[in-house]
Amino acid sequence: MSSAAASATPPARKKAKTTKKVVALAADADIVLKKVRELRKQTAKNIEAELSKTASAADYGSLKKEDLLEVDNLASPDVMARIEDIALRIAKQVLEKNHYTFTVPSRASTNQHYIKSLDRIALGSASGTRTFASVSEVRKTTITARCMELIYNVLGKGIHITKRDLFYTDVKLFVKQADSDGVLDDISTMIGCTRSNLNVVASDKGLVVGRVQFTEDGDVIDCTRMGVGGKAIPPYTDKITDIQSDAEFILLVEKDAVYMRLAEDRFYHRYPCIIITAKGQPDVATRMFLRRLKYELKIPVMGLFDSDPYGLKILSVYMSGSKNMSYDSAHLTTPDIKWLGIRPTDLNRYNLPEQCRLDMTDSDIKTGEIMIDEDFIKANPEWVKEMKIMLRTKQKAEIQALSSFGFQYISEEYLPRKLREGDWI
Amino acid sequence: MSSAAASATPPARKKAKTTKKVVALAADADIVLKKVRELRKQTAKNIEAELSKTASAADYGSLKKEDLLEVDNLASPDVMARIEDIALRIAKQVLEKNHYTFTVPSRASTNQHYIKSLDRIALGSASGTRTFASVSEVRKTTITARCMELIYNVLGKGIHITKRDLFYTDVKLFVKQADSDGVLDDISTMIGCTRSNLNVVASDKGLVVGRVQFTEDGDVIDCTRMGVGGKAIPPYTDKITDIQSDAEFILLVEKDAVYMRLAEDRFYHRYPCIIITAKGQPDVATRMFLRRLKYELKIPVMGLFDSDPYGLKILSVYMSGSKNMSYDSAHLTTPDIKWLGIRPTDLNRYNLPEQCRLDMTDSDIKTGEIMIDEDFIKANPEWVKEMKIMLRTKQKAEIQALSSFGFQYISEEYLPRKLREGDWI
Repeated sequence: MSSAAASATPPARKKAKTTKKVVALAADADIVLKKVRELRKQTAKNIEAELSKTASAADYGSLKKEDLLEVDNLASPDVMARIEDIALRIAKQVLEKNHYTFTVPSRASTNQHYIKSLDRIALGSASGTRTFASVSEVRKTTITARCMELIYNVLGKGIHITKRDLFYTDVKLFVKQADSDGVLDDISTMIGCTRSNLNVVASDKGLVVGRVQFTEDGDVIDCTRMGVGGKAIPPYTDKITDIQSDAEFILLVEKDAVYMRLAEDRFYHRYPCIIITAKGQPDVATRMFLRRLKYELKIPVMGLFDSDPYGLKILSVYMSGSKNMSYDSAHLTTPDIKWLGIRPTDLNRYNLPEQCRLDMTDSDIKTGEIMIDEDFIKANPEWVKEMKIMLRTKQKAEIQALSSFGFQYISEEYLPRKLREGDWI
Repeated sequence: MSSAAASATPPARKKAKTTKKVVALAADADIVLKKVRELRKQTAKNIEAELSKTASAADYGSLKKEDLLEVDNLASPDVMARIEDIALRIAKQVLEKNHYTFTVPSRASTNQHYIKSLDRIALGSASGTRTFASVSEVRKTTITARCMELIYNVLGKGIHITKRDLFYTDVKLFVKQADSDGVLDDISTMIGCTRSNLNVVASDKGLVVGRVQFTEDGDVIDCTRMGVGGKAIPPYTDKITDIQSDAEFILLVEKDAVYMRLAEDRFYHRYPCIIITAKGQPDVATRMFLRRLKYELKIPVMGLFDSDPYGLKILSVYMSGSKNMSYDSAHLTTPDIKWLGIRPTDLNRYNLPEQCRLDMTDSDIKTGEIMIDEDFIKANPEWVKEMKIMLRTKQKAEIQALSSFGFQYISEEYLPRKLREGDWI
């Protein structure tokens, strides 16, 4: 009980110490604000440049813009109209006594391209066909038609369903959920809309707390008044409108434990920010929500992740998207997330005790070696440097390792210092 | 596209149909209200009886009340005072030149008892010792002392931490997180407080939406104005105060997909209820929150779970608690949850199509056979009947199987009919 006894300071001394601490924190917040505002200005400029570039002629490397398949964010009536178009084409084929055939864009890895100037993966223009009159394709063709019909009904009703709901409407045909899930991405690329536009969603995982207000399905939500638990990010981000904020940056944290610490400490009161977590591997809704916040508010995003290949992998999903949904990367990815911590160099800079550093496993090292060759890492020399240190020292560390300095070290020391020093890359 | 074409009714006809539907739904809501209010009255009576019984002489079967170890819900200063008491006792032992020894209540299964009248598992009075001067116990004894010291500091600061945070403050001593997690329950029983009173929490998973308002850490939260995503249940339920509600019942759903459907349809507007989910296996915070809602509002809880042994198992954790935390069952369990659906008898009553019924696996059947012998099932003959049907037909069904009748079948047909007919057991 030694430290418990030691902390029993007389009230007067304790108060003086507290006041001093408050003053120091306030001064600190001012310095941080200045630092972050510089980044914010740069971020806003970058966003403007990016948006204008996308509209005109971006640098697509060896590809042309028209070689890429990128879907649009469509309203439900437009998606329905495009489904009707496809249905009419099928009807015509059948009336002409032909068997009907769908043209389906290819989502194979050979058709996935990393576009450096956009900093995301996009689909090429390769496509294949799916024919009703083929023994090997008849089932998948029927599933495609049936899913389109079901989506048409859902859109007509203006509701949202989960992938599991979709599967259960025709178990006899779909047999496995993987079969109905798979064609959803096909249908998105066929129609040329985002998967969210189909109103078929996965379950929600994300949480948000801090300096942002928005309207969700008619309800005004103020995330500074959401207690310590915060607000669940809805699976239907299209129901979010009228986003308002006085935040200077977005703090994206990998783990809910860290989110909980920052939420309880009301970190966003002292450092004007919006705190978001998807509790590990991000879901589509959280990724869309993050992107919208960044682009509508034009503020930078700082990432707080474990210092291990898995943490980097999660960060990469936010930044460059998952390969499986590369056709929709434009609406799901948030390029230019600053890597705030825990970075491999932090382990020594912050004197992380030896017992809080973990040895990387063989599989960690293998993943790390693949990561360092990924385009989104190679695009940033400072990230490459960090990755090399990780692979050389073969050490990893979780964000929670900072708790060894005290439970509130992260919100009272680590993050303020990081922000004050502008220590992001 | 057949049904899509068929649903293209002329606007006038569509409107008449909609109006008729709205009127029918309103009439339906009245009948439901009457049914549910009867249950509510009964529930309030049961709660009063239960509370007065717990205070005086409940029926503990072959045990006596004093034979049971049940912890109290203590304020932080009280928990700190009890830690100080233990510390003083240790100091005294050391000063008397003895090696110090903790007395730790046993949490072994032989010391766990199902108390029928309370409908929950409680700990008996068996206990063991943990001695510093024993080679085999010195490490665990040191971990216990160190954890107590850390908890004392956390309570003094008035903050909450996660189990992972706790582990990381002394990795060298704890080595594995399981080692620090394990002693937390020991410390709770030693002090005689709930684990939440230690301010060490697991991560939060639960969501709530519907007719309830409360204050969370000073913020007023209105769960009817939380959009379609709802509010995250905070990991620190002690920060929730001043619960207000005009709900007639609580709808507890196993899966977030069903929660999402009901939240989007704003089911609680038509049928005054509070909708809660823990997304599968419930966390401590959701269980405490549910219990508080039921006991403070004195309204019934209806459970909507998959019709399989796993669904029942989750329901049993809400009702009777997990064996691991039986010492704290009084604050975590919500007895008398009505089993609304999906029940094995529903499969035929609602003509669930053959393809939506799944065959139980061998492991399902084994789990089911264990479940039917559990006290909380045996306590309710109607539950036994349902379990027998499940084991005889060897069929299971997920809640989402109802989607085969249409995506909104659950909120527009199934639940209203269930409630109207008072079809809960």
